[in-house]
Amino acid sequence: MGRVLVALGGNALQRAGGHGTWPEQVAQMRLTAAVLATLVADGEELIVTHGNGPQVGTLLRQNELAEHELPPRPMDVLGAETQGQIGYLIEQELTAALVRAKVPRTVLALVSRTVVSRRDRAFQHPDKPVGRYYSEAEARPLRKRQGWEMVYDGARGGWRRVVPSPEPVRWIEGEVLRKLLPRGWGAHIVPVVTGGGGVPVIEKTKGVYEGVEAVIDKDRTASLVAISMDADTLAILTDVPAAAIGFGKPWEKWLGEVRASEMESYLRRGEFGEGSMAPKVQASLTFLRSGGRRAIITDPPSLSRAMRNETGTRIVAD
Amino acid sequence: MGRVLVALGGNALQRAGGHGTWPEQVAQMRLTAAVLATLVADGEELIVTHGNGPQVGTLLRQNELAEHELPPRPMDVLGAETQGQIGYLIEQELTAALVRAKVPRTVLALVSRTVVSRRDRAFQHPDKPVGRYYSEAEARPLRKRQGWEMVYDGARGGWRRVVPSPEPVRWIEGEVLRKLLPRGWGAHIVPVVTGGGGVPVIEKTKGVYEGVEAVIDKDRTASLVAISMDADTLAILTDVPAAAIGFGKPWEKWLGEVRASEMESYLRRGEFGEGSMAPKVQASLTFLRSGGRRAIITDPPSLSRAMRNETGTRIVAD
Repeated sequence: MGRVLVALGGNALQRAGGHGTWPEQVAQMRLTAAVLATLVADGEELIVTHGNGPQVGTLLRQNELAEHELPPRPMDVLGAETQGQIGYLIEQELTAALVRAKVPRTVLALVSRTVVSRRDRAFQHPDKPVGRYYSEAEARPLRKRQGWEMVYDGARGGWRRVVPSPEPVRWIEGEVLRKLLPRGWGAHIVPVVTGGGGVPVIEKTKGVYEGVEAVIDKDRTASLVAISMDADTLAILTDVPAAAIGFGKPWEKWLGEVRASEMESYLRRGEFGEGSMAPKVQASLTFLRSGGRRAIITDPPSLSRAMRNETGTRIVAD
Repeated sequence: MGRVLVALGGNALQRAGGHGTWPEQVAQMRLTAAVLATLVADGEELIVTHGNGPQVGTLLRQNELAEHELPPRPMDVLGAETQGQIGYLIEQELTAALVRAKVPRTVLALVSRTVVSRRDRAFQHPDKPVGRYYSEAEARPLRKRQGWEMVYDGARGGWRRVVPSPEPVRWIEGEVLRKLLPRGWGAHIVPVVTGGGGVPVIEKTKGVYEGVEAVIDKDRTASLVAISMDADTLAILTDVPAAAIGFGKPWEKWLGEVRASEMESYLRRGEFGEGSMAPKVQASLTFLRSGGRRAIITDPPSLSRAMRNETGTRIVAD
C-alpha cells in the first residue's frame, strides 16, 4: 500500500464520439470514479489530477459565439473555470463511489496555479492548437486584431490558434498543502489538484503572479505533484491499456514492466507519439528520476490490475 | 486579534456600470484585496467567501447564445465554474496584496458544495430571478420546453427565469477542513470557500449528493462557514458603508454598534430590503446566535475601520 497520484485524461472524462452533454460527462466520470474508489478500498492514499482539453475548447467556443454581446475572458481564466467544473464533477462522483466502496472520504478540489518561466522557449514558438478550426477569411482578422498565432492544418483544411506549451516549474498551492496536511490525511480526504496542468502563471516579482494564455501538459504537472506530495506511484490514465513500441507496425510490442533506462532509450529513438504518448513517458521518467518508485500508463478499466502489476505499462526505477 | 470571515459581494467583485470585462474585474478585486491584506497585517486570521451573481449570469447567457452549437450545462455546474473563475482571481490578487503588505500567505480556493434540503419550501416556490429578460414570445417556449418557472417584471417589461433559493444546511468540505487544519493555519493560508453560497446539492443517500438548479444566498452560507470555522467576526461587504433604518426616509438613521436583539426587532418590523439588506442581517444574527462575537456590515473602503469599531454596522451579541 502507498500513495498514488492518478492523472485522468481523455476518455476518463469525456467519451469519444459523444455530444459533449453534461449527463454524458457524468456517466463517464461515474465509471472512472468506481475504478478510483477500488484503489482507496485497497488501502491506497489517493490524489487526483485531470486534463481539460475538450472542456476548455467548449468554453473558448462559447466565449466566441457570445462575443457580440459579452466580452470574452482570457484563456487562463477559462482554465480556472474548467477546474471548477471538473473539480465539482469529480467531487460528486468520487464521493459517491467511495461511499459505495465503503471507504468514505471528502473529495477536495483546489483551484491550482502552476508557475511557468517567462523565458521558456515555448513562448517564442507557440505550437499547441486550441479551440476550433477557422477558414482563411475568418483567420486573417484573428491573427491581425487579436494577435493570435495560427497554423494551417492541411488534413482538416483549416486554421487553428496555437498557444505556447511551457514546462511546469512549480505548483504554487502544493508547498503549503504538503506542510499543513497531517500524516494520514489520505484516510480523510482525496485532493483534486492542478486540473488542466494548473492555471499557467509567471512570477513577476516574488509572490506576485500574472496569468498567461498558454497550455501546460497535465501529465508533466502530474509528475511535479506526485513528487511534491511524496506519491509512490504516478498512474497516467489514457485511452489505451498500455504503451507500445513499434505502434501499428508488424513488430508492435505492448510494454509491461520496463526499467526507466530502457524506456528512456525507446523515447529517444522516437517510439512514442509526440502529442500523445511521449509526454506521458517523459512525465513518468521525471517522476522516477526524482525518487518515485513506479509510473503506470494504462486505461481506466485496467488500472486496478495494473496497480497489482498484472497489466498496463509499469515503468520502474533502475 | 482573532479570526474573521469576509463575504465579498456586489461591488467588491465587479464595479457597477462597467462593461464586465476581465481587466475591470481584476482592477476591482485589486482594490478589495488591498483591504483584506490590511486585516491580515493587523494580525487577523482570514477566510474569504464571495458572491457570483453577475458571473453566473454571464455564463448562463453564453450557454444560451451558443446553444445551437454546444449543449448548455446546468446551473449547478455553472456555479462551480464561477468558483474556479473567482477563486483564481482572488488567489492572484490577494496573494499579491499580501506580499505587498509583507504578510505572505498561500491563498487556497476550494470547490465547495452546500447541502440543501429537498423538502425546503423554496423548491415549491422558486422566487430568485436569474439570467436575462425575455419577451413574451421568447418566454413561452422556455416555460413549456425547458420547464422553467418565470415571472413578469413590469418595471423592465420582460420575463425572467426564477429558481429556488433554499436555506443552506451544511458546507460539505467544511467538516474535514476543520478537522485537518492544524492550529495556527492562518499564518500560512487564506482559504477561499463556498463561492456563490456553494454549489447547491441535495443528499440522496448518506454521502451521495445530486446537484440542483438553485441559488443559495451567499451571506447565509457565510454565517454557516463562520460558525464551522470558529470565526470571531463575520464581515459582510456590500455597496453601502452601513445598514440603515428608515432608509431613504427623513428619519433615516445609519446603524453603528447594535445589539443582536435590537437588530432582530428592526428586522421584524421590515426595516431592511428583502433582496438586499435583510439576508445580510439574518445571516449576521444566525452567526451571533451560534456563538459568534461580532458581525459587521460595511463596504470595502470602510472595512479596516469597522474592524476597529470606528465605522460600519457592528452587530454584537446581547
